[in-house]
This record gives sequence, C-alpha cells and structure tokens, in this order.
Amino acid sequence: MKFEERTLSTEQIFSGKVISVQVDDVELPNGKMAQRELVKHPGAVAIIALTKEGKLVLVEQFRKPLERTMLEIPAGKIEPGEEPELTAIRELEEETGYRANSFTYLQTFSTSPGFADEIIHLYVAKDLVKVDQPAIGDEDEFIEVLEVSVQEADELIANERIYDAKTVVAVWYAKSL
Amino acid sequence: MKFEERTLSTEQIFSGKVISVQVDDVELPNGKMAQRELVKHPGAVAIIALTKEGKLVLVEQFRKPLERTMLEIPAGKIEPGEEPELTAIRELEEETGYRANSFTYLQTFSTSPGFADEIIHLYVAKDLVKVDQPAIGDEDEFIEVLEVSVQEADELIANERIYDAKTVVAVWYAKSL
Repeated sequence: MKFEERTLSTEQIFSGKVISVQVDDVELPNGKMAQRELVKHPGAVAIIALTKEGKLVLVEQFRKPLERTMLEIPAGKIEPGEEPELTAIRELEEETGYRANSFTYLQTFSTSPGFADEIIHLYVAKDLVKVDQPAIGDEDEFIEVLEVSVQEADELIANERIYDAKTVVAVWYAKSL
Repeated sequence: MKFEERTLSTEQIFSGKVISVQVDDVELPNGKMAQRELVKHPGAVAIIALTKEGKLVLVEQFRKPLERTMLEIPAGKIEPGEEPELTAIRELEEETGYRANSFTYLQTFSTSPGFADEIIHLYVAKDLVKVDQPAIGDEDEFIEVLEVSVQEADELIANERIYDAKTVVAVWYAKSL
C-alpha cells in the first residue's frame, strides 16, 4: 500500500471502557523511524432521523471533552459483536423514543484519522413512530430531544450550537434527501 | 450549564507529542458518579483549497490509525501559540506548494466529542498560486497532491477513498461556494 508505515513494535499505554491508547514505532517509506500515538475506539453509528414533517431529530447533551452542551444527531458506540444497523436502531430508540419504519445505510467515515481509528456508520431513518415505552439507554447519559427544520439546523451550525463534524455532515445530507 | 458534569478528580494517563490522555471522575446531574476517558489534542486547521479551474486540492497520505491511505483536504495541527489562520497558510504551502491570494475563515467543528477535545478550524483558500520553493513540512509526512472536480470528489466519497468527516464536510461546502 502506498506510503505504508510498517509497525516495528507496539507499546500498550491504556485500556479503558471506551478507548484504548498505544504508541507504535513505525518504519517510514524512506526507511527512517517514527512514533505514532494511536487511540483505539470500537466504532459508532449516527442517525439522520427525519420526522413526517421533515424535521431533523437532534439530541442535546453535555460533552465532557469540550466542557459544553452540544446539539448532535443521535449516535452511539457499537457494542462488542453488535451489527451496526442494530446499534443504530437501538440508539435511536434509547435517545429519542423513536422507531423508524424506513432505515437505510448511507455512508461510513473516519472522524480523526490523524490519531484515532474511530469510524461512524451513518444511517437515514424515516417514517418515525414514537414508542410508548422506549428502551432505556446508558444511565449516565442525560439527553434532551429537539426537532428542527433544516433551515434552523443551518442557523445552529452558524451559531455553533451544532459543533461536531458528523452533525454538520448530517445537515448537508438532510438538505439533499 | 445544562447537564453539566462536575470534575471531582483527574488522573493523568499519558502525555505524548500529539495527544495526552486523562481519566476524570465526574459528578452527574443526578448526583451519581461516572468516569470519562478524555483525549486532549492541540486543535487543527483544514483548508478547502480551490484552484482557478474550480478544482478541490486533496492530499493523499497513509493514516496509521486506520492502516490505509486516505484522500483528505490539506490539514494540520496548530503549533503552540500559533494563530490558526497562520497554521492554515503554513500547512497549505507545506502540503501542496500553494499560496492563496484569498484566505477566508469558514467554520469550526469538533471531530469526536464523545472522547476527544480536538476541534478543526476550516478555511477557504482561493486564487491559488504555486510557490517556487515551498516551505518544507514534517519530515515524517509522505504526501501526494491531487486536484479533483467536485463531481469527482463525490465519487471518491461514494467509493470511500475520501473517508474522513472533515473532507466530506469540505466537499459539501465546495459545492456551495
């Protein structure tokens, strides 16, 4: 593979509940050595959920890494052995109380290719129905649900209440759906 | 702030050249405790660089976390004390050999709000001029430069050679510029 960096050794630094961290010694294409600091993540899903009125479903939650609340599309980590589409169906119900009669895979992308292997599988959920007694999600998640038009979503990007790449991608796609 | 998670203690896990890692004990809005695994990153810039022919400038490089080469817009980490716009001008020249007569700030977004504080400041560079002897970048970066139309960029997203969120965002913006 072009420009490949061959791994010479791996030092395991940290193994947590969400991420693990390692430092690899690599051989560069020119034969020199370098170190790469790598964050391992199980991968995630995110859902562009559109109501019958054409509104985009967002969730608001506090994000400790950024020390602020953010408006994002529903999303969540893939559990070990879980099919990504089932993660997406589960997270949509847990975070928003919605089930979708139409669930379509859209695209996968990496979030931070310079230091992390996290990828996000993006789905489109349409024909949403509110569940009477939705499944309960993580007990340490505090989430509020909002529904906004794509015009409102554009304004939320402009004033940085929407502030993460996956949700910006989602708003662009929602405009074209 | 809504749903705020109050930090009770911080355990420093790792301090590297690019990232550092810590685990925070936090108090949740309901008074319970939780742990948050946090990656600290200096922040980055990325550049939507459009040639006089309206082509988008991409760079191809090997990304160790994903063990593959990827096509991305030019980007790079902010050095300590560096103004983000100067980072953007510097990285564009180092990675592509271009200087821009028009350089405009567009937007900032977070890449992985669940576990990392990385933010990317996005700029638009137009009216590009090739530099005779461009500044040299990191000696452990091996980069190839490509110029593609936005239609070609769409195909590169579809076949996952473009595979990172910031470049997907950039392609959408490039269509509207």
